[in-house]
Amino acid sequence: MIQHFTQHDIEQLEQRQRARFINSLSGFKSANLVATKDVQGVTNLAMISSVFHIGANPALVGMIIRPDTVPRDTLSNIKSSKEYTINHVSSLIWQQAHQTSARYDADVSEFEQVGLDEEYIEGVHAPFVAQSQLKFSLNLREIIELKINGTVMVIGEVEHVLVPASSVQSDGYIDIEALDTVAISGLDGYHTTQHLGRLSYAKTDKPVTLLCVDGAPYEG
Amino acid sequence: MIQHFTQHDIEQLEQRQRARFINSLSGFKSANLVATKDVQGVTNLAMISSVFHIGANPALVGMIIRPDTVPRDTLSNIKSSKEYTINHVSSLIWQQAHQTSARYDADVSEFEQVGLDEEYIEGVHAPFVAQSQLKFSLNLREIIELKINGTVMVIGEVEHVLVPASSVQSDGYIDIEALDTVAISGLDGYHTTQHLGRLSYAKTDKPVTLLCVDGAPYEG
Repeated sequence: MIQHFTQHDIEQLEQRQRARFINSLSGFKSANLVATKDVQGVTNLAMISSVFHIGANPALVGMIIRPDTVPRDTLSNIKSSKEYTINHVSSLIWQQAHQTSARYDADVSEFEQVGLDEEYIEGVHAPFVAQSQLKFSLNLREIIELKINGTVMVIGEVEHVLVPASSVQSDGYIDIEALDTVAISGLDGYHTTQHLGRLSYAKTDKPVTLLCVDGAPYEG
Repeated sequence: MIQHFTQHDIEQLEQRQRARFINSLSGFKSANLVATKDVQGVTNLAMISSVFHIGANPALVGMIIRPDTVPRDTLSNIKSSKEYTINHVSSLIWQQAHQTSARYDADVSEFEQVGLDEEYIEGVHAPFVAQSQLKFSLNLREIIELKINGTVMVIGEVEHVLVPASSVQSDGYIDIEALDTVAISGLDGYHTTQHLGRLSYAKTDKPVTLLCVDGAPYEG
C-alpha cells in the first residue's frame, strides 16, 4: 500500500522521527570522514554523509555542514587552515567512523577516541585516515551560508589523491565497490554494494549498453 | 600499491578520463529521476546523481545542475513552474533512467522516449514516475549560482511523499534498500546494496551498537 505524506503530515512527525524520514528521501549517500587540524595542532575527524561532486575541471567537491551539530570543529578548522582531507569509509571502519559523530570536546582528537590512525604526506598539513582506502586532500575555495536553514556549504578543490592503483581503470573510473566503500541511508544505515554494471554514454538514437572493465563495450 | 595523483597529474588526464576519475572521488551517489513540465505541457525527465539532504525542518533537498548539459530543460522548467518531483531509481528501471541523459530535443518527452509512465496527484502540476518506488514533490525555494564553475544549486522544500507503507519504520527511517533503490559510482556505475546495519546515536562514553528494525537496540 502506498502511503501519501503531505507537508502537514511531515510537520506532525516527532522531531527525530522527521529527521530520520527526511534524511531517507534523497537516496543513498556517500560515507566519508573529514579530517582537519586546528591551530593548536589538535586533529579532528567527523563523519559526513553529504559530500557531493560539483565539477571535474577544476576538480571541485562540496559538502553540507550544520554548524550547530558535531562537525562545528571541522568547520572552524577548515576556516582557519583552509585545508582538509576526505577519506572513504569501508566496511572495516564503519562503526568507528559513526562513533566520530559523538560530541567530543574540541581539545580531544576523534582519531584517538575511535581508534583510527593519522597519516601525513608532504605538503599537506591536514591528516589523512590511515585505514581509509581512498582519500584526497582539498584546498578551501568557498564557504556559502545557506540562509534558508543556517547550514553551510563548503567547496574545496582536490589537490592530492591517494588510491590503490589496481582500482583505477584506464578510462579514469575508480572501482569504489572493489575498494569496499560503503553507502549510507537515512541517518544511521550502512550498506555495502553489488554492481549492476556500467552503462555507455547515452545517445538519443540507440539504447544504452553495458560496459566492461575500462569502459569498453561489453562483448556478449 | 597506492598511487599518488597530484593536482598536476589530474590536470594532465584527458577530459573524459578526468571527469570519470573526479566523479568517483565523492563516494556513492544517489540515483534519482527529476521530473518537470514546461509551460506548453511537455514533460521532462532527467537522471541526476547529485541530490542531497540539506535539512529536515523545514524539509529541504538540494541538487547540483550543470546548465550546459542535459538537465538544461529541467532547470528552465523548474524556474518557470517552481515545482518538480524527485523519483528514486530501482534496479528495474536503471537502464531507462540512464537513457534519459541522452540529448533529446526540448519538445520531446523523455518519459515516452525511454518508456516510463507519468503519474499525477491532485495539487501537483509536475509528473511523478509511475515505476518509481519512492517519490516526492518539491516547491522551489532557492536557486544559487555557483560562480566558481557555472553550476547551479537548486533547493526545494518537500511537499508530498509517496512511499510504500511497509518500508517506513516506526522511528521514521525508510528502508530504501528494501525498496530496491540503487546507488551510483562515478559517471555510469550502478549498484544495489546489502545492509551492514543501523547504528545507535553515538555518545562519547559508550561504543555504538547495532539497531534492529524500528530503531530498537539489537538483542543478541
